[in-house]
Amino acid sequence: MRAVDVITKKRDGGALSREEIRFFVDGVTAGTLPEYQTSALLMAVLLRGMTAEETAWLTDAMVHSGIRVDLREIPGVKVDKHSTGGVGDKTSLILAPLAAACGVPVPMMSGRGLGHTGGTLDKLEAIPGFRVNLSLDEMKAALARTRCAMIGQTAQIAPADKKLYALRDVTGTVESIPLISASIMSKKIAEGIDALVLDVKTGSGAFMKTEADSRRLAESLVSIGNASGVRTEAVITLMETPLGRAVGNALEVIECLEVLKGKGPADLIDVSVELTARMLVLGKVASDRADAERRVRATIDSGVGLDCFRRIIESQGGDPRVVDDYQRLPHAADRHVVTAGRAGYVSRLDAELVGRASVALGAGRDRVEDPVDPAVGIMVAAKPGDRVQAGDAVLELHYRDRARLDAALPLTGAAITIDDAPPAARRLIVGEVY
Amino acid sequence: MRAVDVITKKRDGGALSREEIRFFVDGVTAGTLPEYQTSALLMAVLLRGMTAEETAWLTDAMVHSGIRVDLREIPGVKVDKHSTGGVGDKTSLILAPLAAACGVPVPMMSGRGLGHTGGTLDKLEAIPGFRVNLSLDEMKAALARTRCAMIGQTAQIAPADKKLYALRDVTGTVESIPLISASIMSKKIAEGIDALVLDVKTGSGAFMKTEADSRRLAESLVSIGNASGVRTEAVITLMETPLGRAVGNALEVIECLEVLKGKGPADLIDVSVELTARMLVLGKVASDRADAERRVRATIDSGVGLDCFRRIIESQGGDPRVVDDYQRLPHAADRHVVTAGRAGYVSRLDAELVGRASVALGAGRDRVEDPVDPAVGIMVAAKPGDRVQAGDAVLELHYRDRARLDAALPLTGAAITIDDAPPAARRLIVGEVY
Repeated sequence: MRAVDVITKKRDGGALSREEIRFFVDGVTAGTLPEYQTSALLMAVLLRGMTAEETAWLTDAMVHSGIRVDLREIPGVKVDKHSTGGVGDKTSLILAPLAAACGVPVPMMSGRGLGHTGGTLDKLEAIPGFRVNLSLDEMKAALARTRCAMIGQTAQIAPADKKLYALRDVTGTVESIPLISASIMSKKIAEGIDALVLDVKTGSGAFMKTEADSRRLAESLVSIGNASGVRTEAVITLMETPLGRAVGNALEVIECLEVLKGKGPADLIDVSVELTARMLVLGKVASDRADAERRVRATIDSGVGLDCFRRIIESQGGDPRVVDDYQRLPHAADRHVVTAGRAGYVSRLDAELVGRASVALGAGRDRVEDPVDPAVGIMVAAKPGDRVQAGDAVLELHYRDRARLDAALPLTGAAITIDDAPPAARRLIVGEVY
Repeated sequence: MRAVDVITKKRDGGALSREEIRFFVDGVTAGTLPEYQTSALLMAVLLRGMTAEETAWLTDAMVHSGIRVDLREIPGVKVDKHSTGGVGDKTSLILAPLAAACGVPVPMMSGRGLGHTGGTLDKLEAIPGFRVNLSLDEMKAALARTRCAMIGQTAQIAPADKKLYALRDVTGTVESIPLISASIMSKKIAEGIDALVLDVKTGSGAFMKTEADSRRLAESLVSIGNASGVRTEAVITLMETPLGRAVGNALEVIECLEVLKGKGPADLIDVSVELTARMLVLGKVASDRADAERRVRATIDSGVGLDCFRRIIESQGGDPRVVDDYQRLPHAADRHVVTAGRAGYVSRLDAELVGRASVALGAGRDRVEDPVDPAVGIMVAAKPGDRVQAGDAVLELHYRDRARLDAALPLTGAAITIDDAPPAARRLIVGEVY
């Protein structure tokens, strides 16, 4: 088989065979396929597309580029959640302890923040001592202890994806539903789970800007998961404005703890409960959605979810005292308040711009190798729909470095719109695919 | 400027700016742009296209990757000819001496054969001693001596093209009219000519299979040439069957000498006279096409064209005695005759298959680094339209190696079709663009 013939076939709109896809992924994994041929094929795939069958084969080939973790020794239906990425999107830290507390084993492999979106690993690492780089054996031990492990992807999981993603990032070939689907699902399938709940974000602050694209991505992801024996369902949720009120790693940890204490913002609670309830049904510990939702809310109310999170932190080397003493989390001493320039209703608070402002403060990264500052971030004082007077606080920036604050302020300024009338209320959960 | 942004813009169907194209070509020339970004952009260009303006900028950037030869010291309007490649396509060896004999300076830079098509340099090198690797100074000296120099492309001419072509060849990005156009025209513009006649081949044996595609390519080439100050016109000629009767380097040299002696096959004479006449008009040594054609035919009849070729051979170190003694050219001792299996008319003699058979015998190459055998090749005994009896010769294969003959025979067998009725006569010159 010659790589140029595979490229030419896709370039001309043909469907690749399972063998051709395997040849390509194996070549990427082994490093025998030159990157210039890989990137030409990626561009042809982006512009010509892939059938559902090709996408499933691509995912399968990427799974087989590494190991598929065997978690059969852990009893129960193992369920994970994956989000396509948002701003203030911290539900993992809420739903993992809640689902585990309800009896669902949660072997969660997450990523780091990149661009304007945050990442679960960065948030967990805001907790002093918390170790996300567990080996697979340590992960199994953690699952046995607390029914939950929250870790980073190990090098054995879909190594082809890591190479392909690095190349896609610099060749304009990220925005392809088949490539995105295979990237996400190969990692999820390889981690050894039985079921998966997907949170596919949609809107200006999401990777997919339109509901139609988000639905197409959700359908592609669900179809691949189910074809690979991982029961998969997706919720499509709105990402126009930050979820909850906290953006930034330590600030988001605090907000999650608040939700587990029965407090916290309604939008964040709603999405977290929705996703956790689905995990309970897929995990076969609840008979139906109504039962599941009741149990999730009871697990919050009783404090059992919070206890579970405390044990997860302890199990992974973190300081569990942060649960009751937020001062033990990193915090930035300086505050800058962005106020409303006029009276009215906050009609728009742009998620992407708030996310980029948070990155500017140091909470995220533009390049994979950049460090993050766990302490800095942005608190949302007034959310869309809130009535404000001129001079009222809209955003509170927690910063450490004046130059970084100066870089963030134009972004936060552009993120806020105040109108005479309140914006139309929009339901946060806009669809589901299963 | 970031390469990934340029790639993304083209991927999304945008038109690149002159600066973006320059950035890209400069990066290729300097080796600072990674090949994986280059190939992704090439694939995006192939699938999204380029405007005439972008293609002209691309050509210009490629010209400026090297030197533009200054031939102002050579008096007269310098005219070259370029063919997009065919089988038995040997007109350069006829028209260069004819045009030079008529007073047109011909600084011709040609290529080598690749795939099923032959190349002028390989044909010239069949003449013992003929040197095609002249320096630019030697080229100018040769032009001063004989008004003609027939040489290979030097390393200073459009070096970006060489790098891009090598990458296109292995990434499925050859078949793009803007990329083909820029590749051809950057080299022609850089060689310092004032005018150019293009022979754009069309049909099953040509790179462009349909007349519509050939016309699009011709229009693109002509538009770039004229925009760069090189007066350019194109003839679109049919390439369904070999041009003339000889395919193979020394065999083609002999056929060219025959034409210059007033003999040779009619189709080859027609195309050669057409192209030379256009060179005379562009070169301002003939007042119009009728005058030009008269002068070309007179230059053949008088033997002045043949004398000029003799002097060109001598000027570039070749043995001029080959003109009168074909035994001084390399020749293969063994012959194999492919005969007609039935009586009827030759209705098809497939150029591409004859070309591939000739490569199989050793006359051409599949890879740039392969050597060629100047002696071997194929003589066409019966052309389409000729009446044959069963057992009559259709092709005569001149071979040196029995294994190579065995590889060629299935191709020649498949190349021939004999029918009861003669094929419809088709005009060889199907169009022009200027």
